Formats: sequence, C-alpha cells, structure tokens
Amino acid sequence: MIIGGIEAGGTKFVCGIGNEKGEITNRISIPTTNPTETMDQVKHFFRGTPLDAIGVGSFGPIDLNRNSGTYGYIKNSPKVEWKDFDFAGAISSIWNVPIGFDTDVNAAALAESIWGAAEGLSSCLYITIGTGIGAGMIVQGSMLSGISHPEMGHIRVRRHPKDHYEGCCPYHHDCLEGLAAGPALEERWGKKGVALKGVDQVWELEAYYLSEALVNFILTLSPMKIVLGGGVMKQHQLFPLIQKMVQYKLNGYLSFNELSQENIAQYIVPPGLGDDAGLKGALALAMRAYQSKL
Amino acid sequence: MIIGGIEAGGTKFVCGIGNEKGEITNRISIPTTNPTETMDQVKHFFRGTPLDAIGVGSFGPIDLNRNSGTYGYIKNSPKVEWKDFDFAGAISSIWNVPIGFDTDVNAAALAESIWGAAEGLSSCLYITIGTGIGAGMIVQGSMLSGISHPEMGHIRVRRHPKDHYEGCCPYHHDCLEGLAAGPALEERWGKKGVALKGVDQVWELEAYYLSEALVNFILTLSPMKIVLGGGVMKQHQLFPLIQKMVQYKLNGYLSFNELSQENIAQYIVPPGLGDDAGLKGALALAMRAYQSKL
Repeated sequence: MIIGGIEAGGTKFVCGIGNEKGEITNRISIPTTNPTETMDQVKHFFRGTPLDAIGVGSFGPIDLNRNSGTYGYIKNSPKVEWKDFDFAGAISSIWNVPIGFDTDVNAAALAESIWGAAEGLSSCLYITIGTGIGAGMIVQGSMLSGISHPEMGHIRVRRHPKDHYEGCCPYHHDCLEGLAAGPALEERWGKKGVALKGVDQVWELEAYYLSEALVNFILTLSPMKIVLGGGVMKQHQLFPLIQKMVQYKLNGYLSFNELSQENIAQYIVPPGLGDDAGLKGALALAMRAYQSKL
Repeated sequence: MIIGGIEAGGTKFVCGIGNEKGEITNRISIPTTNPTETMDQVKHFFRGTPLDAIGVGSFGPIDLNRNSGTYGYIKNSPKVEWKDFDFAGAISSIWNVPIGFDTDVNAAALAESIWGAAEGLSSCLYITIGTGIGAGMIVQGSMLSGISHPEMGHIRVRRHPKDHYEGCCPYHHDCLEGLAAGPALEERWGKKGVALKGVDQVWELEAYYLSEALVNFILTLSPMKIVLGGGVMKQHQLFPLIQKMVQYKLNGYLSFNELSQENIAQYIVPPGLGDDAGLKGALALAMRAYQSKL
C-alpha cells in the first residue's frame, strides 16, 4: 500500500509517502504561505506517486461535522488566508482516493496509539505545547469528537499566586495557552524557552500550569497514557516536575497503578514517535479512511 | 422484556422493574445501610419477577476494568461498610442473566441520551450536583472510560477572588466538589441551599463555579448536550446564570450554534427524565448488557 500523509501546520506543511506500517520512505517540508501556493507544492511533491489513500492532519479550528455544509473547511483561523479554505475539498479535487481528515493533534494521538507510546492501549491523550497548545484524544480507538474536535489548549487554569503575567491569548488572556505556550514563556521571561534552559523557576512555573491542566484532563478523560510533545516539551527537565506536581495535586484520590510513584514516569511521557507523530498520524488517518471504504 | 434496574446511591437504593422502552412499572426505595442488609432488601423486591436482564448504576468509585481482579467492586469509598464490596459479583450470584454495571452518573448520561434531553445525539455530558458532584459522558453512544470512569467532580477550578471559603473536599479542599456541592453551599452560607433560594449572591457564586467547570468540560469533551441534575440544580434560577457565564468566559472562541444566544438554553438543560434519569439509566445498562449477549 502506498499512502500519502500531510501534516499541515501553521508554519510548515510536512508531506510524506509511506505505508500501512507507518514507515515513511520520502518526505518534504513546505512553508505554509497561502492555500494556492502551498497546495501547488503539495501536489507537485506527490505527482507521479500512485496513492491508495491520503490523510491530512490539519491545524485548526476545522469543521469535522459531516452534516455541515462546510465540512473539511478551516474555520476562523488567525491565519486569514486560510480562513474558510475548503481543505478536504481541495484534496478530493486532486486525488480520487479515500481521504482521512482530522486535526493535527488528533492525528498525532492516533499515531501514538497505533505505533508509539500508547501502542496497544485503547485510550491516549496527546498534547502539543509549542506556539500554541492543542490536544487530541483517542477513546476506544477513535478520535474523541462531539460538537467538534476538542480545544483543550484554552481551558481555564488556576493562576499561580506569584505569577502576575497577564497572558497572551487573544480570546481569554490567561487560559492555559495564554499562560504556558511558547509565546507566553517568551513574553513573561523576555527570552525564548531554549535560552532559559538552566533557570529553574521558569520550568517550575511551566510545570505548575501544565500539571493544573493534566490533573483536570485525567479527572475528565481518564486517559490510559498522556503523551506530551511540541517545542516546549523538548525541555525534558519538565517531565519529572510535571509528574510530581500531578501526584501532589491529585493527593492520592485516584488509586491507579499508572499514577503510582513507580509508574508515573511511564504514564506521562514524550512522544514515542518523536517528531514524526504528526506525519505518521496523517498516514494513520489515511489508513482509517481506506479501511472504512472496504 | 422484563428488566430490573438498581440506582445504587449513597443514601438510598432505588430499584425498579421496567421494559426496553424505559417504562417503569414498579419501584421501591431502600435506605443504603450495609451491603448485607441492603442487598437482602433488593433481592426481596425482585423476588418472583422473571428478569431478562439487570442493570446497576452505582455510587463510586467503582472498578470498571474488566481485566482487573476487582472488577465490579466498590473501591475506596468514604462509606466504609461498602468499601471493597464485590457489587457486580453479588448481583451475578443472585441472577443468572446479563448484568450491566457502571457508575450512577454514566447510567444517567446513557438514559438521557436514549430517552431524555439528548435523545438522538451521539454525545451527552450528564452532571449531578448534590451531596457530591459527579459526571458521566456518552461518546459515540458509549460510556467514556479509560483507566477508569471519569471523576470530573474533583477538577480544579479558578477561585472567585471574593470567596474565602476553604472548601470541604477531604482530598483537595477546594476542588469543584469542595466548593460547589450541597455541603459546601451549606457550610459557606450557614444554611441549606433550599433555605437560600432568594439570596442572589449565593446562586451567582454557585453559577460562577459551575460555569468554570462547564467551560473546561466543553473545551475538553465537546459534548453535544449538557444535562445538569441533582439536588442543587432544583434551583432553576441557576440555569440562565450558568448559561450566561459560560458564554462570557468562552468569549466567542467557539462559534458553534449550540453556544449562541438563541440556542444555549437548549444546550445546558435540566434532565429530560427528571428524577428518573438514574433508574432509567440502570434499565439502559441492563438493555446494553442483554444486547451484547445476543
């Protein structure tokens, strides 16, 4: 089987050709400019490859309601040139094959649950902490969705009493993303995260906010594995801090083995697929679409 | 079909005999004392009725992991006599029929999604605000579960700056339940909720905390309907307050019709089944168990 995958991010599109095992044989990275230009480059990359299916993990928000007249569209994105772009429609006008289409984070969650850190588990929460904060959730093997895909990056978290930074979310100021995504880190401390590696208080505060969110996600979703990816999580010193604070805040209320002293480092983990979670997720979406047409 | 349902609550067990349409023909209420005494009365109520299936919606926490050695047990409940009681085992030792077993709130969510306020929808969040706060979530027609059932009542919420009540959760002090369940209301204001009906600030603060939680649940779970039940929600003046605060806090970030000015009163609603959501949920669990054996 030859599968096409597109990890459509806000700054770059990563396209890859792979197979049903999630193996990638060829890939390219394309800057995200405007739909006409970027889609032309996407088309050019895949030209001549006889694809059996194609999958797209897209930045959002996107319309995933199949009964909606704008299914597959990018919705009110801050990236104005992409707002109201019929992404799924553009793909299906090029390729007459099964098409998988979902959020970039749902795709990554799916890939982690098939080939990565949550392999063999029926439930997995994947969170990316980078330019923004987004999350995808697999429940009983499928992407969690209801009215729409989740928007967990914007949950309200309890402020740290000593943190007076106002937050940078244009909608909510100090929601999780407004307090803990890369831009918030940079605005609060005056430097990019990578330049603050040795400053303990930076990562303690970051772990404080991420653990606020994780405690709520654990109590709400009961995930079997939590995978934390994205640029900010390259600061691996965050993992033990987050693990400890999650235990402290739950205070023994949930008595699961996963949350025990011995096991929590295997419960809250980096992506098993490293930086390939998104692209492999797009392959997984394609596979799902292909199988559902059989 | 003749179905038995048990709504097993911390203060009373409601047992009923019904059918696959969720109609209840006979019922009884039994005080929750200890397992031997209460189960004897349950057995007595159903004696002579040829049940095709039986369902239990139980207070928790309960073990729902089918691979666990303690599947169907009540876990570390504050009700000491019920801690480690093999509830599902006790039922199956009495009745040799398909048995449905889940939390009381998952059962209520299921009933609301089949016969109640979320009829015809594939997703529904049911929250009860009473002696405690618990929630059940239906996703694509099934109960959401992962490591275990959710424990949404204990999420961390942002404190109201003018509220200095310390909270009454024995594990977390000021989690949602510790700040907004019935006992918190009573301890904070010195009177039971029913005696405070006309005092606006009581319900504004209550709506503040419940809307904090709902905003996070909406962003995390994207439910198609939110049903609020339980004793505290008998104060119907809470509904418009909560609806308004949810919109205010989301600040237009989610552009779904459900959250619009015209529709939000149909999105955050009282139980369509009134006080029968729990018992009818037990019938629905029984039906599910019966169908899965066919």
